[in-house]
Amino acid sequence: MELSIYQLKLMREAIQDKPTVGFKIGLLGLGTVGTGTAQILLDPAQRHPLVQELELYRVGVRSLDKSRPVDLPADRFTTDLESIVTDPAVDIVVEVIGGLEPARSLMLTAIAHGKHVVTANKAAIARFGDEIFTAATKAGVYVLLEAAVGGGIPVIEPLKQSLCANRIHTVMGIVNGTTNYILTRMQTEGGDFADILADAQQLGYAEADPTADVDGLDAADKIAILASLAFGGRIKLPEVHCEGIRQVSAADIAYADKLGFVIKLLAVAKRNPQVATDPEQLQVRVHPTLIPKVHPLASVNQVNNAILVEGDPIGQVMFFGPGAGAGPTASAVVSDILNIAAILKVGRGSQMPLDGKALLDPLLACSHQHYCAIAPMDELTTRFYARFSTNDTPGVIGKLGTCFGDHNVSLESVVQTDVRGESAEIVVVTHNVREGNFHQALTEIRAMTSVNSVASVLRVL
Amino acid sequence: MELSIYQLKLMREAIQDKPTVGFKIGLLGLGTVGTGTAQILLDPAQRHPLVQELELYRVGVRSLDKSRPVDLPADRFTTDLESIVTDPAVDIVVEVIGGLEPARSLMLTAIAHGKHVVTANKAAIARFGDEIFTAATKAGVYVLLEAAVGGGIPVIEPLKQSLCANRIHTVMGIVNGTTNYILTRMQTEGGDFADILADAQQLGYAEADPTADVDGLDAADKIAILASLAFGGRIKLPEVHCEGIRQVSAADIAYADKLGFVIKLLAVAKRNPQVATDPEQLQVRVHPTLIPKVHPLASVNQVNNAILVEGDPIGQVMFFGPGAGAGPTASAVVSDILNIAAILKVGRGSQMPLDGKALLDPLLACSHQHYCAIAPMDELTTRFYARFSTNDTPGVIGKLGTCFGDHNVSLESVVQTDVRGESAEIVVVTHNVREGNFHQALTEIRAMTSVNSVASVLRVL
Repeated sequence: MELSIYQLKLMREAIQDKPTVGFKIGLLGLGTVGTGTAQILLDPAQRHPLVQELELYRVGVRSLDKSRPVDLPADRFTTDLESIVTDPAVDIVVEVIGGLEPARSLMLTAIAHGKHVVTANKAAIARFGDEIFTAATKAGVYVLLEAAVGGGIPVIEPLKQSLCANRIHTVMGIVNGTTNYILTRMQTEGGDFADILADAQQLGYAEADPTADVDGLDAADKIAILASLAFGGRIKLPEVHCEGIRQVSAADIAYADKLGFVIKLLAVAKRNPQVATDPEQLQVRVHPTLIPKVHPLASVNQVNNAILVEGDPIGQVMFFGPGAGAGPTASAVVSDILNIAAILKVGRGSQMPLDGKALLDPLLACSHQHYCAIAPMDELTTRFYARFSTNDTPGVIGKLGTCFGDHNVSLESVVQTDVRGESAEIVVVTHNVREGNFHQALTEIRAMTSVNSVASVLRVL
Repeated sequence: MELSIYQLKLMREAIQDKPTVGFKIGLLGLGTVGTGTAQILLDPAQRHPLVQELELYRVGVRSLDKSRPVDLPADRFTTDLESIVTDPAVDIVVEVIGGLEPARSLMLTAIAHGKHVVTANKAAIARFGDEIFTAATKAGVYVLLEAAVGGGIPVIEPLKQSLCANRIHTVMGIVNGTTNYILTRMQTEGGDFADILADAQQLGYAEADPTADVDGLDAADKIAILASLAFGGRIKLPEVHCEGIRQVSAADIAYADKLGFVIKLLAVAKRNPQVATDPEQLQVRVHPTLIPKVHPLASVNQVNNAILVEGDPIGQVMFFGPGAGAGPTASAVVSDILNIAAILKVGRGSQMPLDGKALLDPLLACSHQHYCAIAPMDELTTRFYARFSTNDTPGVIGKLGTCFGDHNVSLESVVQTDVRGESAEIVVVTHNVREGNFHQALTEIRAMTSVNSVASVLRVL
């Protein structure tokens, strides 16, 4: 009979016959989210009574000199984060320092010491989830991460629990607040990306280095996590197709608007229809997308996020709310802490399992081992929007149409606009086509003398 | 040391050293939702692996003669529902027969026999929740009811778990699909209530006796349940203010549209701002409401439901999806079953608690005992929309304005339209006012000779 570290801890407490009262929290990081988390823990009134049983026991910070917005005795603070994750008294470690290291190492050490972990760190989980969850399963501890996707919006736990009877087909959504803020302003003001990004940086809606947001990397981390939960397998992050919003122009937003669409940075994870005996493949991708104005995701504006889940037999459900910010993210962090505390409260009273099997709740724990197969983008079936700058010579629409037709790309609409002197813009929206075919057609079109450039190519939902 | 019936069952199994493999489900009812539930249980592929451990062990039906849409041996069916809820082999009883009796008695008997209960029965829970949850707490079993509100939309479990760190201020939403379908069609077609209700009945969107839906009773049951969860106290159903949509006319929808609103049947539960040392009071109410078109709830159309939760520090989150139907409701039922199975799977391995305290998870169980105080409607502060039929005599607007002013009712807009011969319609929208004051003004206005009638009064969000 092999016992987990956590089980040994329970056994030790049972033998000593002095079960700990309350749950001791070790908080790593006191930035925006850490401060929000501490503020909830120190103000339990009108929240669930269980909040009163949480004790903010240790707080790991970068420097002890700074004044703190939370009212705690000085001896709770330390700059030695390692001492928190190895402290035998700590029950739950909350990692909100962000970044890859030392976050990854601290989480692994905490797990190795039998502590449950709550994290908001999408980057670390998307990259090292494999290592972290394998360690957690072995140690018999939970790693919960509601705050990693959609800020305060409940989506991880609903996927694990409330929707667990479903066969999920699709998870897709707007999961990055910064890019949604920029695109919303481009839509309402008609401005250009660079100007609005600069303004967003000044207002604090975009970071000084906006790469992770505007290039879609943050959204890719999040959709990898959602895909893993929805489809019960691990996702290799480099296999997630990722395009950002730098290439989205005011002209595209204006054309899309006329055609009945808004442009959003969409993260999509989808089961491909299974063909014959081929193994199942997923699509996991992030890219700017034309969304029909009547679609529920089209009206998700500003820094809001929304995640839409489609499954059998649920149909379509959507979760909407603030995708970032201290309060919402802290709401998710503390709710995860409470979920673990609730389980411990029940588990504390009980002794060891008879058969030595792990005590982890199979819905909340993460036990899948295999990697999901991701389909190559060329095999994707989707609609496309493309904008061409052409010489306004008679017959150019005919040439485009013929070329697309040769590659089995059928067109839904073709609009020629904006004739300026000798040149014109042609905007094309296709029916559902194979992505590889569309790109073959584009290669031929780029070589046409009557086509000056392919000004933009975007997918259409 | 007092042991619950469920704990005794665990102990018996532990002593016999033959823990049961799989979880035995006793399904009460094989109507729409029951059939949907059975279909998920019998088709576990691509769902959570735990579905394979659920066994549809007994099915209670009204008659054995009917042909069944589910593939099960004949000996699983019985018309003796009592025999299911008392069967020692059954772990979880699923009540989807609906109605008050025998549903209530069967649930209570199941609980008394140490069985966990999953139900979709909002009517029984809203009326007998007190009795049912008291019995469940005593017996140490769970009663889960995700399907009772919002069909398949996860909202009960998110309120209990994912949002449990929050101080909830408001839960409100569109929780009745039939009325939302009727109002959506009145909005898009301009038709009258009676005609569209008749059509909805023919199409199966409204029942032959539509009272529970169109008079707001179903929505009242649901908001009572949501309020109880959000604010941690019991709600006396007769204290829930309830108005249906029969009095909403095509004219009101047209005026609202011009003023920038849509009319929805809104269910609201809200903490009143606490004044000095007065005990906290809640508003819990259901009524047709003018909702600004930009509000997230305004675009929830057809049979869809949406529930909006506001709290500190989460801000505002919204849950959107299909509010009814076999598939969505069965999704919620089976997810509840799986949540209990997951807990049992962990709990099964363990022995009795050291101190004899109940094994129930404090977030999932329902242990509050006190009743919430509900504020009288006269004390509500809200905006109002009112439509008056008047003689088109000069000065009638002045008289209305003076009367409202005398009662501290300040007006946001006054529009006189539709002059037909001698009579005219005047539409008024107020600022936030005390409801009691508004009604006092209305009493005086009704007595005015220049006012023919108060054609309609609706609240404005």
